[in-house]
Amino acid sequence: MSPSAPTPAYRRLSVEERRSQLLAAALSLFAHRAPEEVSLDDVAEAAGVSRPLVYRYFPGGKQQLYEAALRSAAEELEQCFDEPREGALIERLGRALDRYLAFVDEHDAGFSALLQGGSVVETSRTTSIVDGVRRAAAEHILSHLDVSEPGLRLRMTVKLWITSCEAASLLWLDEGKQPPVDELRDWLVDQFIAVLSVTGARDPQTAALVKALGGDD
Amino acid sequence: MSPSAPTPAYRRLSVEERRSQLLAAALSLFAHRAPEEVSLDDVAEAAGVSRPLVYRYFPGGKQQLYEAALRSAAEELEQCFDEPREGALIERLGRALDRYLAFVDEHDAGFSALLQGGSVVETSRTTSIVDGVRRAAAEHILSHLDVSEPGLRLRMTVKLWITSCEAASLLWLDEGKQPPVDELRDWLVDQFIAVLSVTGARDPQTAALVKALGGDD
Repeated sequence: MSPSAPTPAYRRLSVEERRSQLLAAALSLFAHRAPEEVSLDDVAEAAGVSRPLVYRYFPGGKQQLYEAALRSAAEELEQCFDEPREGALIERLGRALDRYLAFVDEHDAGFSALLQGGSVVETSRTTSIVDGVRRAAAEHILSHLDVSEPGLRLRMTVKLWITSCEAASLLWLDEGKQPPVDELRDWLVDQFIAVLSVTGARDPQTAALVKALGGDD
Repeated sequence: MSPSAPTPAYRRLSVEERRSQLLAAALSLFAHRAPEEVSLDDVAEAAGVSRPLVYRYFPGGKQQLYEAALRSAAEELEQCFDEPREGALIERLGRALDRYLAFVDEHDAGFSALLQGGSVVETSRTTSIVDGVRRAAAEHILSHLDVSEPGLRLRMTVKLWITSCEAASLLWLDEGKQPPVDELRDWLVDQFIAVLSVTGARDPQTAALVKALGGDD
């Protein structure tokens, strides 16, 4: 093909490539609008394909496409938590948060719609995909803390902090992405240390961690 | 009426009394089962009335009944936050939390179903009732803190802590109501002071509050 030949609109893609292309188009639409405001026609148009083709890949229609897009976003989000087990724990946490907040920044409206609930496409399946991401985040943190059998109080503390990070990112989007993202990251890290210390005052397992964290810095 | 006469099953109630009776029956069912597991027949049976009577009061069926029950629970919940403006702030916060946690204890399964989302009866209307309670909680706290124009960082801190209390009560229910409720209350109060202090390190308005809280104790 000569360099000047136009790219054909319907280049033949493999099944996997086509599926990925449709998911990417859906994700970029769901990222900027609430799911109820995205139609299959919009997805077809964004991907430059026909509506029947979208249905061929997602015969369950918008619900199926939304769930597949959500699953793909969840995988991307879980990759944010992949952090080498090297260096100070606080810095690892800061780097994971940087990646998480970049994800929130990129997927803003879709991220809000998903977490705020009340959406017509929200089902127990979508809820369980989101819960899976929360569980993965908690497991990553506990594994970096080198805790294999976290007690009730430590488990609750880690989960509460993850909820706080989620809520903080929603508020951050609501507030026009204020305060600046670097400040938000440091603030969340400091909150983690602070709530761990509060728990440490009533839980020996957490107290030992707080001590180790201080020495690690 | 002599003391030994049995209470008639269909005593004539006023419209308001009947409505309250049906709502109370619905609330007690929604408190122990997820909304999708409660039928209008269950509500009729619990209230000792016929199903058509339930429909006469709630022609929109279960969705309408659920929303009305939710509204009534939201009012009850907002009353938990009514605390006289007397004594140390930390103690006022502790008393409001005691009432809130008693509410969570009483409405357990219904409380979880509502806040965890993914329920078939969840709509933007039910979400906005719940958001109204969150807003009311934030306003109460800021008014007790004597702040009329909270800045971004203080507002976010208060909202994040409210989210933490919600998440903590869900985890507490999941964990079979462990740790003991008094410990949970003190833990949440301590978390509030800790996250306020973290925010105070980067926000003068919050720093002034933290100082005042310390002196108030």
